[in-house]
Amino acid sequence: MPDPKSDEQAIRDVISNWLRATAAGDVDAILPLMAEDVVFLRPGQPPMRGRDAFAAGLRAALPQISIQGVSDIQEIQVFGNIAYCWNRLTVTMTPRTGDQSAKRHSGSVLSIFRKEPAGSWVICRDANLLTETPA
Amino acid sequence: MPDPKSDEQAIRDVISNWLRATAAGDVDAILPLMAEDVVFLRPGQPPMRGRDAFAAGLRAALPQISIQGVSDIQEIQVFGNIAYCWNRLTVTMTPRTGDQSAKRHSGSVLSIFRKEPAGSWVICRDANLLTETPA
Repeated sequence: MPDPKSDEQAIRDVISNWLRATAAGDVDAILPLMAEDVVFLRPGQPPMRGRDAFAAGLRAALPQISIQGVSDIQEIQVFGNIAYCWNRLTVTMTPRTGDQSAKRHSGSVLSIFRKEPAGSWVICRDANLLTETPA
Repeated sequence: MPDPKSDEQAIRDVISNWLRATAAGDVDAILPLMAEDVVFLRPGQPPMRGRDAFAAGLRAALPQISIQGVSDIQEIQVFGNIAYCWNRLTVTMTPRTGDQSAKRHSGSVLSIFRKEPAGSWVICRDANLLTETPA
């Protein structure tokens, strides 16, 4: 029997593992947290389709910047093998070299999660509404 | 038995009715298409919570501008009484008076729909990623 409570906790764990692995620069630990056919939507940019595209982008960025994210989950609703999560994120990107200052983005994220046949929850659609905010 | 095909069509009808009613300035026809506890998320703005807040905002705007929307649905996935829709919208806002020119916004929208006990589908969460684009 599905247990909505433990499903919700599993989704919370995906989010906290994602942020921890991002801060650690551990791309290989992030990739299993998203569906292979994931789509990331961002304002003013074309959709980013697929885990491989995400991995390539993050691997290109991480040598230049460190990324620290703080999550404030507003809502998780689970319906069997599908769920949505409304999260508020604050993400600080700090250049690893040079004298550029850190940039902070904050705002809401609306994500769709699905439970894979093996039982793990993954992000499959993600609408990221973060905008730059004063640090 | 639920029929995912007719559920998908019902969701398409919600979207087309929404755009038609908005263009017609018919707020009363739009309100039944959203849940009472709907939340609209937009970049750089606080969440707009509830049908009443939406109605107040739209009623204040419509005397000043006409709103024409064109929808290009990318994906609808139905899971029982819940569904998500990834849409691409182009919205043109034209001042009703004065010489200001029309503004066009376009981009993705990720929306959560739910089927109410009476059987109608309504929008309950909506992440609007539209940005201003050249007309």
